[in-house]
Amino acid sequence: MNVSIIGAANTKFGELWDVSPRALAREVVFGALKDAGIEVRQIQALFVGNMLSGMLGGQEHLGAFFAEELGFTNAAAFKIEGACASGGLAIHTAVNGILSGQYETVAVLGVEKMTDHKPEDVATALMGAGSSQERAAGCTFPGLYAILARMHMQEFGTTEEDMAAVAVKNHYHASLNPNAQFHRPITIEAVLKSHKVADPLKLLDCSPISDGASALVLSVRRQASGVKIVASSVATDTLGLDQRASLTELQATKEAALRAYKQAGIEAKDIDVAEAHDCFTIAEILALEDLGFYIKGSAARAIQAGEVTLGKAKKLVVNSSGGLKGCGHPIGATGVKQVVELVAQLRGTAGARQVAGARMGLAHNVGGSGATAVVHILKR
Amino acid sequence: MNVSIIGAANTKFGELWDVSPRALAREVVFGALKDAGIEVRQIQALFVGNMLSGMLGGQEHLGAFFAEELGFTNAAAFKIEGACASGGLAIHTAVNGILSGQYETVAVLGVEKMTDHKPEDVATALMGAGSSQERAAGCTFPGLYAILARMHMQEFGTTEEDMAAVAVKNHYHASLNPNAQFHRPITIEAVLKSHKVADPLKLLDCSPISDGASALVLSVRRQASGVKIVASSVATDTLGLDQRASLTELQATKEAALRAYKQAGIEAKDIDVAEAHDCFTIAEILALEDLGFYIKGSAARAIQAGEVTLGKAKKLVVNSSGGLKGCGHPIGATGVKQVVELVAQLRGTAGARQVAGARMGLAHNVGGSGATAVVHILKR
Repeated sequence: MNVSIIGAANTKFGELWDVSPRALAREVVFGALKDAGIEVRQIQALFVGNMLSGMLGGQEHLGAFFAEELGFTNAAAFKIEGACASGGLAIHTAVNGILSGQYETVAVLGVEKMTDHKPEDVATALMGAGSSQERAAGCTFPGLYAILARMHMQEFGTTEEDMAAVAVKNHYHASLNPNAQFHRPITIEAVLKSHKVADPLKLLDCSPISDGASALVLSVRRQASGVKIVASSVATDTLGLDQRASLTELQATKEAALRAYKQAGIEAKDIDVAEAHDCFTIAEILALEDLGFYIKGSAARAIQAGEVTLGKAKKLVVNSSGGLKGCGHPIGATGVKQVVELVAQLRGTAGARQVAGARMGLAHNVGGSGATAVVHILKR
Repeated sequence: MNVSIIGAANTKFGELWDVSPRALAREVVFGALKDAGIEVRQIQALFVGNMLSGMLGGQEHLGAFFAEELGFTNAAAFKIEGACASGGLAIHTAVNGILSGQYETVAVLGVEKMTDHKPEDVATALMGAGSSQERAAGCTFPGLYAILARMHMQEFGTTEEDMAAVAVKNHYHASLNPNAQFHRPITIEAVLKSHKVADPLKLLDCSPISDGASALVLSVRRQASGVKIVASSVATDTLGLDQRASLTELQATKEAALRAYKQAGIEAKDIDVAEAHDCFTIAEILALEDLGFYIKGSAARAIQAGEVTLGKAKKLVVNSSGGLKGCGHPIGATGVKQVVELVAQLRGTAGARQVAGARMGLAHNVGGSGATAVVHILKR
């Protein structure tokens, strides 16, 4: 798969009251172009990952919108939407654009501005990722993931402490990431004592509402310091939980991972560093099992034992960026940010978060409660 | 470019009060699968073109939504949005998915349900395709295209009768299309006497608000009766009219057409049948010039002289389906419907609308007031 990542950049994630989506896009795309050492005119296509701009801001047509803002005159431009997997889907679509021979060098922009809107409007808009039955029943995503958590607890004895350990790890990693939303390490006790959002999930089990943007420059051309994309796969499952055969695994994640490992010609054990979709703490536990890093029912204890924590990891480090939980979760940006983090890890430029000798990285981006899953595998 | 269209289907376009988006999707995708003679399980990816579902209906994540509805278990699925060009962009993205080697056989679904909502809400949502300055100024799309019409009248002496002739032709073509929204032929006088929407555009200069869906099955495999996609190109321009160098041409259309002709290795004169984006009558005039069928300022009189009308055409027939004006304009479906019409023409199955001996077809899909343009060229 002849696609190189030649540029990558993130904005700071967080409550960015003083910047517009345009400003976020400029910062991060021009940052990625500078990183790649190329000019605006060399970009032939722009792939934008975003979910909420239309519903919350009334602005659609974001491909052309950002192509104009960035000065990509006459470039092709697309908005790709798949809820919280919009960023991952934008990368996949960009990869295909290059592999198809249509484009040589393209930009991927993941961007979301969430804090400008009333929290209840954001919660309502986010349920656009779920099924109409779930919306009619008054479900929210914390509620849906709480169901997944309860099922996992019931079947495998997973505890609230186990889930809290995911938050503690990811807040620790985020404390080492200058671009993360949260820089405050937390404790198991703090998670357990935080107020309940949807039992058994508490405030500190949930990823935050965030603003932010991330960008990549992909190209057929290689670089000396280049990171290659060796797999890009997408799978889907039913939109609503009620139609699923199992509630203790995400079938889309399993399928996307299988395809990605096959495409890359590797196994789960070959991965040194992974960004897994931890929109809620239970989601990271599910992900590490469904991606094949741990057998079903065994990931929670491994996370609590520090097996995927920076500095203590035995096989791989998970969510060195801080994940969605600690780094923040601007919906459309998240899937792109995951890959930006892996690029830093594989280049060896991740600073205090560096996973020593990282050679192979995996990014796992989920839409809704698992209806879409995207897996990318990167190699130094 | 090794991509064949092996299945194609349209629903009827119109005010479809009694069917849901799900039902529209089932009708048209299962219709296209039947046409292709393949099974649901052979579809590896679904590309959905839609603009308004999130803003008007609160349902996003349409890739997974329709993949579930259609039984495409575990298939990859995407929603691609680019305003009224969403359908064309979905096809382009699907073509790239095949050319990349990621997918062998995929479905493209263009779908929009507009009549369930209050007209003022639809008009507001549609302005999501324009610039924030245009929205702030209270512009609507009829108003923006009225500006383009005024400029063309001023520069080239184009008249209201010239524009009316586009509507008359396309209503005539639509009268021959069982799936069209309008089956009533109209006269120049009727257009001129219809009430003003945005001077100089009158009601019968404007495409309607419509429901409908269209689907294609694309594959690397060829069929005996197969139609091939020989070019697929996308270009952009500024979102708002105020930033454009010229208001008498759509630069994105010119650029996308140039790329498409180059990709196909043909010239404009080689096209036998074209579906051009006639959201307003002036738009077809602009399109025929910008696509290279007529030199700037000469298309209007040619249309009025019947040069692109079924049965009278000298060089090519334009909008045999009835176009957006006569066949209807369900936003996300339009770009896909154009290609479905060309497939019928190139297969020789277009019935009363058949362009004798059609061998080469062109589809031209525009987003907003020209910020996105998509061109596909098909060959028998």
